[in-house]
Amino acid sequence: MMRQTVDKVTVSTRTRGFYEITREIESRVERAKVQTGLCTLHLQHTSASLLIQENADPDVRRDFERFFARLVPDGDPLFVHTVEGDDDMPAHVRTALTTVNLSVPIAEGRLCLGTWQGIYVWEHRTVPHRRTIVVHIIGDER
Amino acid sequence: MMRQTVDKVTVSTRTRGFYEITREIESRVERAKVQTGLCTLHLQHTSASLLIQENADPDVRRDFERFFARLVPDGDPLFVHTVEGDDDMPAHVRTALTTVNLSVPIAEGRLCLGTWQGIYVWEHRTVPHRRTIVVHIIGDER
Amino acid sequence: MMRQTVDKVTVSTRTRGFYEITREIESRVERAKVQTGLCTLHLQHTSASLLIQENADPDVRRDFERFFARLVPDGDPLFVHTVEGDDDMPAHVRTALTTVNLSVPIAEGRLCLGTWQGIYVWEHRTVPHRRTIVVHIIGDER
Repeated sequence: MMRQTVDKVTVSTRTRGFYEITREIESRVERAKVQTGLCTLHLQHTSASLLIQENADPDVRRDFERFFARLVPDGDPLFVHTVEGDDDMPAHVRTALTTVNLSVPIAEGRLCLGTWQGIYVWEHRTVPHRRTIVVHIIGDER
Repeated sequence: MMRQTVDKVTVSTRTRGFYEITREIESRVERAKVQTGLCTLHLQHTSASLLIQENADPDVRRDFERFFARLVPDGDPLFVHTVEGDDDMPAHVRTALTTVNLSVPIAEGRLCLGTWQGIYVWEHRTVPHRRTIVVHIIGDER
Repeated sequence: MMRQTVDKVTVSTRTRGFYEITREIESRVERAKVQTGLCTLHLQHTSASLLIQENADPDVRRDFERFFARLVPDGDPLFVHTVEGDDDMPAHVRTALTTVNLSVPIAEGRLCLGTWQGIYVWEHRTVPHRRTIVVHIIGDER
């Protein structure tokens, strides 16, 4: 018997950086009581991303910040859209270079993540934000 | 009762730039009569992207063009594949740096987009093209 | 009648580069006996990507390598995380700039890929790896 749930997860960010939501999403999958299925996450914003990346060495996340700060520098004179500050347009570009959408299969009642994969909200703005992720789960009842 | 629809949306592009399809996709969701579900878009091309981005200030889209023109310049001597012109390989790279795939949950019969999120076909070629998006909808009958 | 399958495809990579899996995924769709549906691929790694790109001229893939080698150079002194070598952190960044997730609709029993679209595992590490892709298929029985 096929079933579905749609739910929301909110994350309060303090500044630019990575906020892990793996446990939270896993607990939603647990609660959905789905044996085999698909879990889709959609972040409802245009200046933050969803990213699946290494959950072990924190240097990986710090290097990501360094690389993206160089690739899409705050205050770049190229940008006209600076309504919300120096990090406004860079936040949009960083979002487009990554993604706001993820779909991960569910097998034996669990998300099919790899051993080193964690799910993160990557905040690209330097000021605090409240970010909402819509979580859709479809699958066979456990 | 679970149902599905598969449909196509076509967009005629004039030149490089953003072509909004939010209303068109929303009307397909409306017609599918799905209450809770998932809407997946797949663009069948390798030199244009699907992008969810800010639908308010048009400067955002202009800044996107400026940034990508600098990051992946037309006529870059690095590129060997120039069969269709200076913008041929840059169009492929711009597509890979963004995406051709999106999945957005449906709740209460509507796409769960954020307030400022619009769905765009981002044409990366400078000459006109006809672009096809496959729209798959699955969910509970309304 | 709605059905689902979850399956794995593994790819042994020799070095950095593109490994086409289109035929393999198409045969999984064939075996799933789904008429209309959705096929989701999830690569369980953080240093290789899934990419839909041109399957005709091999120069396209070579140009992709050249462009990404310049954009995210191996041995960049910016990076602190170099545990597994010069290509360690660049492989993570290249993965984040592309994706590990794809969802392609199925119509009339076949993947809705465009004429020139192939599905690739893009290996970003220079040493051989064994890569696993989880393949989830949901749809109406054929």
